[in-house]
Amino acid sequence: MASEQSAAVRAMYERWTVDRLNGRPTDPESWGDLTAEPRGVDYVETDEPGVPSMWLLPHGAAADRVLLCLHGGGFVAGSIYTHRKLYGHLAKAVGARALLVGYPLAPRHVHPAQVDATTGAYRWLLGSFAAGHIAFAGDSAGGGLVITTQLHARAAGLPLPAAAMAISPWVDLEVSGESFRTNARTDGYFYRDVVDGLVEVFLGPGGSRRDPLANPLHADLTGLAPLFVQVGSHETLLVEGRELADRAEAAGVEVRLDVFAEQVHTFQMAAGRAPEADDAIARFASWARPKLGLA
Amino acid sequence: MASEQSAAVRAMYERWTVDRLNGRPTDPESWGDLTAEPRGVDYVETDEPGVPSMWLLPHGAAADRVLLCLHGGGFVAGSIYTHRKLYGHLAKAVGARALLVGYPLAPRHVHPAQVDATTGAYRWLLGSFAAGHIAFAGDSAGGGLVITTQLHARAAGLPLPAAAMAISPWVDLEVSGESFRTNARTDGYFYRDVVDGLVEVFLGPGGSRRDPLANPLHADLTGLAPLFVQVGSHETLLVEGRELADRAEAAGVEVRLDVFAEQVHTFQMAAGRAPEADDAIARFASWARPKLGLA
Repeated sequence: MASEQSAAVRAMYERWTVDRLNGRPTDPESWGDLTAEPRGVDYVETDEPGVPSMWLLPHGAAADRVLLCLHGGGFVAGSIYTHRKLYGHLAKAVGARALLVGYPLAPRHVHPAQVDATTGAYRWLLGSFAAGHIAFAGDSAGGGLVITTQLHARAAGLPLPAAAMAISPWVDLEVSGESFRTNARTDGYFYRDVVDGLVEVFLGPGGSRRDPLANPLHADLTGLAPLFVQVGSHETLLVEGRELADRAEAAGVEVRLDVFAEQVHTFQMAAGRAPEADDAIARFASWARPKLGLA
Repeated sequence: MASEQSAAVRAMYERWTVDRLNGRPTDPESWGDLTAEPRGVDYVETDEPGVPSMWLLPHGAAADRVLLCLHGGGFVAGSIYTHRKLYGHLAKAVGARALLVGYPLAPRHVHPAQVDATTGAYRWLLGSFAAGHIAFAGDSAGGGLVITTQLHARAAGLPLPAAAMAISPWVDLEVSGESFRTNARTDGYFYRDVVDGLVEVFLGPGGSRRDPLANPLHADLTGLAPLFVQVGSHETLLVEGRELADRAEAAGVEVRLDVFAEQVHTFQMAAGRAPEADDAIARFASWARPKLGLA
């Protein structure tokens, strides 16, 4: 059974659902309240990557290894503030610094503004770090960007990173996964109609749900960085996480998929509070460290 | 009437009271969730002041002006993490950097460990900043330290800072204020028996409630820095805030006292969310800037 601390994530989604059904605004910043302070991590905002971003600098971490971190929020919410602590935990566990990218949000900015910005941030990082010393990490919409940013970078002739970590990646813009039905009772927020509405907002008028740069289930994944996907068995996005892992593996990518029993979407937000979240972060770290050349 | 956002502070105190009466632990870190992210402020942890501390570095702020910030929590709780955002707002509004000091907590460390540590941090700051470019700021127990740190520094022959800002200062260790009775229904947490228990823990066995270095109502306040006290009209600590202001004024100190109607203890924690908190921070900033030589 999910821990009490971990259940706080689902409880938050239920509040979001009640707010949505009542037409009430949800305070997007309170999302980050799920996460405990990592402690021993410094936070420095910078616009140098081309969009408002934040360095997460764990004390004692390697200065020449970096995680490019891409937050979730359905491309309409989330920020460098809501996800500061989540990626602070990950960076601290890996022993690297991290750059958390504040890419532009829909509806003001529709696809491909997001992947353009994250690819620009990656290009900027490559000015100071070897590709083999960079890992991508992202959750939900940011988990999709972990893949599409690689596709965009590859097309631009950039070298690819050493590793990619995706938390509950949102990739299936056709919203076709069987888990939208089978997990509707356990998810708490990401019902098919909700996700469908997010797709419309993200793509804008005229966007295609099969654009490979938006929906990597329609992309050629050959040559991408080793990929570690984490999903919760109770989330509606379970099937697309599995499908992404399967397709990457079929394309020859080194893939690890961990399904966490009775966990919901991006349960890792309870890092520092819930044992499942801490376990998930630790699994990422022990997987990524050797790929980044860290002992 | 207090704004809805501001009422969240009192609601939190009520939860603390329910937790206390049920013998449940309160998550001390969630205290900071009351405060919105100031944004545009960097956070850098450092042990250089002698105790674990945090630099709060607003972008564009004067690098040669600094606030020494002393958090609240009854000398048993609170941290550089819970109060990062509150003092981030204040530093940003003043246009100075801030050093938030993680002084040791009771019961493990009893008085005078706290004022020793904060005075040590001040002495360390004086190595890099002119006294006339330093202001003290603190809330609750930290508001008491805003005074006692000056007393300790004066006794050590150190120059005093340019200004001092105290939010709901906790100074009356005799717990004698009439407002413990008159505001018992509006405060939410700081009932006389609760505060009395904190005094016991803070002083430890053998400590005196009239020790001037712990209870500045029994100290000679002559020569202290200009003092701005903010208190809420609904809090049980109202009277001691007034008494501190009266005694400082009688000792020749330049004093300003603002009582905020229908506000509770340290309502400024709702900075960035509640209009009353933002107003309070703005009043501090416009008062302190000229004293620090900022235009």
